[in-house]
Amino acid sequence: MENPDIQRLIQLLSRLPGLGPRSGRRATLHLMKHKAAHMAPLMDALQTAHDLVTTCTVCGNLDALSPCTICRGTKREASVLCLVSDVEDVWAMERAGIFKGVYHILGGVLSAIDGIGPQQLNLQNLHKRLKDGTIKEVIIALSATLEGQTTAHYVSDLIKETGVQVTRIAHGIPMGGELDYLDEGTIAAALKARTPL
Amino acid sequence: MENPDIQRLIQLLSRLPGLGPRSGRRATLHLMKHKAAHMAPLMDALQTAHDLVTTCTVCGNLDALSPCTICRGTKREASVLCLVSDVEDVWAMERAGIFKGVYHILGGVLSAIDGIGPQQLNLQNLHKRLKDGTIKEVIIALSATLEGQTTAHYVSDLIKETGVQVTRIAHGIPMGGELDYLDEGTIAAALKARTPL
Repeated sequence: MENPDIQRLIQLLSRLPGLGPRSGRRATLHLMKHKAAHMAPLMDALQTAHDLVTTCTVCGNLDALSPCTICRGTKREASVLCLVSDVEDVWAMERAGIFKGVYHILGGVLSAIDGIGPQQLNLQNLHKRLKDGTIKEVIIALSATLEGQTTAHYVSDLIKETGVQVTRIAHGIPMGGELDYLDEGTIAAALKARTPL
Repeated sequence: MENPDIQRLIQLLSRLPGLGPRSGRRATLHLMKHKAAHMAPLMDALQTAHDLVTTCTVCGNLDALSPCTICRGTKREASVLCLVSDVEDVWAMERAGIFKGVYHILGGVLSAIDGIGPQQLNLQNLHKRLKDGTIKEVIIALSATLEGQTTAHYVSDLIKETGVQVTRIAHGIPMGGELDYLDEGTIAAALKARTPL
């Protein structure tokens, strides 16, 4: 018989990915016990992100600016575009710190089960960007899952029609990966893509 | 290279119990993608809980009222007090729906490692409530851990000084529990507390 306001907070926290009813309750109690140290800053951060952060109309990234900082970046190569499925992939690429081009976020991958067809992906914008002539190469960086690879095939056909060069990031053994623990698919891909030393 | 406002939100969500940097990022993206359906209601629920919900000055429960709904409850037996360590324990007891008395929340258990001594527990208030004469029995419902049992011992000595009867909830085989999977401590406790049929 929790208080209804508490119940509502528990319910909303429980719906966050990675949380359930139990951890939602724990998170709620933690926040109630640390009102000044954690709850108030979280409320403020949510408010700021809610009001200021928006989706970049060019690439689909999240930023306070639209076009986003990456799309505006004068030090970035506007001629190389990396195609990813979600915002978290942009973050992962940026953490690696090696890619200096621009991004385009599809907003998902084709999936019959989840009802995601070409219409649900951010493809129209991509087409517009490619027709402009600035972009010379599109690097497809989608997950090496069935859906990811199906999407890669579909999108690469679309891109080739515009005359822009299409590449995709390599499949192979991850750094630190032990051969013994890898699946056959990865080993086969790594063998096929072997490079001369 | 996430936007700083997003980074701050990720950091604060990551600090919730049960979440880490990775799930904090996922939760943040989920909220940004569902601003109207999830983020705004969550902000509102946090605001309401932050502003309205308070700690009951009598028992330590969380509620919009102080004394809380349970302490005020006219249908509850004010003569039986259940002593628990935290608010989540009150919720668990209330879910069971069998206890009709009032509660007292210690706010933790004695723990040398965590630096929790008698001063850190809500004992002064308990003493005040017991001296009043309304309470005839205190049921100790603390965890069956080393710290919980140490605390139970310490507190029961304090309560006995006031002349109030002290009991503790039974240890034994949990409902649905298989003997084969239970530890020796539980089996020993269950044997000792056997009841005639």
